[in-house]
Amino acid sequence: MKNSEPMRITKPDLEAFIARMFQACGITGKDARRVASLMAEADLSGADAHGVFRLPQYIKRIQAGGINTQPEIRIANERTATALLDGDNALGHLVMSRAAEIAVEKASASGVAWVGACNSNHAGPASLYARMPLKHNMIGLYVAVGSANHMPPWGGTDMLLSTNPIAVAVPSAQNPPIILDMATTVAAYGKVKTKAQLGEPMPEGWMIDRAGNPLTDPNRAAEGFLLPIGGPKGYGLALIFGLLAGTLNGAAFGQDVIDFNADSKTVTNTGHFIIALDIAAFTDPDDFKRNVDDIWHQMKNSELLPGFSDIRLPGERLAKTMADYSANGIPIPDKLASTLNELAASLGVNGL
Amino acid sequence: MKNSEPMRITKPDLEAFIARMFQACGITGKDARRVASLMAEADLSGADAHGVFRLPQYIKRIQAGGINTQPEIRIANERTATALLDGDNALGHLVMSRAAEIAVEKASASGVAWVGACNSNHAGPASLYARMPLKHNMIGLYVAVGSANHMPPWGGTDMLLSTNPIAVAVPSAQNPPIILDMATTVAAYGKVKTKAQLGEPMPEGWMIDRAGNPLTDPNRAAEGFLLPIGGPKGYGLALIFGLLAGTLNGAAFGQDVIDFNADSKTVTNTGHFIIALDIAAFTDPDDFKRNVDDIWHQMKNSELLPGFSDIRLPGERLAKTMADYSANGIPIPDKLASTLNELAASLGVNGL
Repeated sequence: MKNSEPMRITKPDLEAFIARMFQACGITGKDARRVASLMAEADLSGADAHGVFRLPQYIKRIQAGGINTQPEIRIANERTATALLDGDNALGHLVMSRAAEIAVEKASASGVAWVGACNSNHAGPASLYARMPLKHNMIGLYVAVGSANHMPPWGGTDMLLSTNPIAVAVPSAQNPPIILDMATTVAAYGKVKTKAQLGEPMPEGWMIDRAGNPLTDPNRAAEGFLLPIGGPKGYGLALIFGLLAGTLNGAAFGQDVIDFNADSKTVTNTGHFIIALDIAAFTDPDDFKRNVDDIWHQMKNSELLPGFSDIRLPGERLAKTMADYSANGIPIPDKLASTLNELAASLGVNGL
Repeated sequence: MKNSEPMRITKPDLEAFIARMFQACGITGKDARRVASLMAEADLSGADAHGVFRLPQYIKRIQAGGINTQPEIRIANERTATALLDGDNALGHLVMSRAAEIAVEKASASGVAWVGACNSNHAGPASLYARMPLKHNMIGLYVAVGSANHMPPWGGTDMLLSTNPIAVAVPSAQNPPIILDMATTVAAYGKVKTKAQLGEPMPEGWMIDRAGNPLTDPNRAAEGFLLPIGGPKGYGLALIFGLLAGTLNGAAFGQDVIDFNADSKTVTNTGHFIIALDIAAFTDPDDFKRNVDDIWHQMKNSELLPGFSDIRLPGERLAKTMADYSANGIPIPDKLASTLNELAASLGVNGL
């Protein structure tokens, strides 16, 4: 097999692998299968920095005692259209999939629901949760406090902010759902990690060092910080999202954020929130989805700027990747496959 | 009086001026006073491209029959925590201040409320509405479809998108509220108009022409388009906000958006939405506000990057401007004052 053609694995096989790894670490069968399903779904959607790539880190944290393997996730505060979920230091996937369920249930009656979470952990790609309300004819919005601070306030050098991503998913009729999934930084830190894994330099503009010079070596990432989109605007977005997803939920934000890359033991108290918005509370969902198709086509049919070959809609690449990987399997880079198989051997379970 | 020292006017005087101008155009006294109060509040907060600066344009539209001077704003669709408001083509300030009232009322019971609006118009600065829930110990979020398309989809040249701004306001205890108010473009179009008014060039990076070259002459703005923050990310934000504030509400988005700078007659069907989020549904509001203060101080106390003299929090300049203008009056540039006084004379009312 050539280096350029990594192994491919089906989603069910990847799911089964992840589930047996978690079970070997003391996670209950039901929880292990739920997290495995969501992590494999992340890989299937092409979120390659947020799927099985993160498994070694999650397992390291479980083994260090930084994750509660027997959590009791509970509603700590509740109104008709809101809930605050206490994740009891569970894997973030368990907390936020539960949050999405509650949001959908509440929104189906109230029209909208906002569910925040504290005492959670890294939960994978933001789009995973924003997409959950779609099948209920709802729009999903998700925001998280990132799991490590990689950005200072605008004009500063103290790393007090994370990439604090936002994802929004809107259904269409004939086209893929429109799914925005973006960090408030030019690049997400997961992309820096992927570049390091691939042994490739980062483009200028992703990071600068503490003197303000461009930083392009992903292995030197700890010496610099990520740049916000739109300068002070991206800083403002990261700050506001941190207040809403962190501070409001009693979760960590600012200097309280634990760098989960460097520290596997300390409880992270990660905060997130999800909003489910019932389309039928505003208009007929079928009409709405046809109107989204119309907007899709308007964008697609725009004249092109010199140097561009097409207009892309957010979510279009995700849908194409998902179709490819569903048919042909999910590619696992050689280096990652070796890491995962070594870890499996150390846990005494079958590899990929 | 030197050119560098424009006239200053108190908020009550500016309010009275705007109200008599609207009344002279057939707006009822109550509505005229309400819009005047909000427009003067915009000027007081330093949103100088969105306050009385816009009055000539609003009056031109009223005179052309493009605004309903006797509107009946009504709830077209409603759930416990949502409403869709039909603005009956009223001035946007009337529609969105009503939307904010409904959102606060619903959120005080449900924890959160999302109120969308259609058949509205330009409503001034986004922060004006995001700030309204603050005095009820709530967080406010506001998004609008901009009142003219100035941006193509990423990679295209058809102007299908507006600056689609977002504002979020979060209260603190000892400091000003943290208020993010940003366009999804590097510069808002109002800033381009202000540059033209001041006779100053725009910095590179605000706009490009149809060949992709930088455009810096604000008087040539119609030949080019605004650039999104973070490239495709800002395009994605503008698109998603347009779907949520426009399409979902049955309001204009994409090619249906009327350029209200060029066309004063056609109904704009402007869309917006506001979210009110009751802090008490999550945590004790006093605790929360103290925690926001703590975040404020963390940001302020960051070490500085070379070339910076301080860290600014979003909303800090707004609070300083408001304190200055409350004490010393709102400055009105000479050229704007002349325009307004000529317009007042033509309407047979007293000038500034």
